[in-house]
Amino acid sequence: MRFDPSTLVYNSSGLIPAIAQDHVSGVVLMMAWMNADAVAQTLETGRITYWSRSRQAFWVKGETSGHVQKLVDMRVDCDRDCLLVLVEQTGPACHTNRRTCFYTAIRDGAETELMRPEV
Amino acid sequence: MRFDPSTLVYNSSGLIPAIAQDHVSGVVLMMAWMNADAVAQTLETGRITYWSRSRQAFWVKGETSGHVQKLVDMRVDCDRDCLLVLVEQTGPACHTNRRTCFYTAIRDGAETELMRPEV
Repeated sequence: MRFDPSTLVYNSSGLIPAIAQDHVSGVVLMMAWMNADAVAQTLETGRITYWSRSRQAFWVKGETSGHVQKLVDMRVDCDRDCLLVLVEQTGPACHTNRRTCFYTAIRDGAETELMRPEV
Repeated sequence: MRFDPSTLVYNSSGLIPAIAQDHVSGVVLMMAWMNADAVAQTLETGRITYWSRSRQAFWVKGETSGHVQKLVDMRVDCDRDCLLVLVEQTGPACHTNRRTCFYTAIRDGAETELMRPEV
């Protein structure tokens, strides 16, 4: 079946969550949002492109930092309201320079930092 | 630092997305939503508990199907607006009886089913 980004289920702001996962290590790197045009652009260019809710603009991941995400595979979930993108990540994914945005664990009721920023 | 679920960033409906990942295989299983009480209940019981947007009720994953998710580790992202739960998954995670909800890939502009339901 041909894929049409407009057949995905978007929220009231026209956005769908996209989870980025490192295609080699399996590490979940980040979650951000795409609109239908960002989904289409990601597929067309092979560069993960989110929609920045704060800037209200396309956010080609790594365009400024160089920490780009190359699309390896795009997955759609059963409800068509969430995407999983398997990526080849250059550099750290997080704006804090950590490999993943999920660097804080909740253990025994307290927050624990699992990794330091890369240098 | 003590963890307080009210310090997370929730959307206008009081919800935060929670990504469930198999702690052994690294497979991303599903994404669903939690409110602050569901986060607290998940930590307290060790059973992943979402908030069902359709039923407007707690959704203890697997309570009906038996396909429970046991909490192994909870992670918070840098913006505090997304959770990652590493889980021990019993049975398939998807209501279609597939291991993961992300069983459809977009390849060469078409949708491809990557796995069949488990029997």
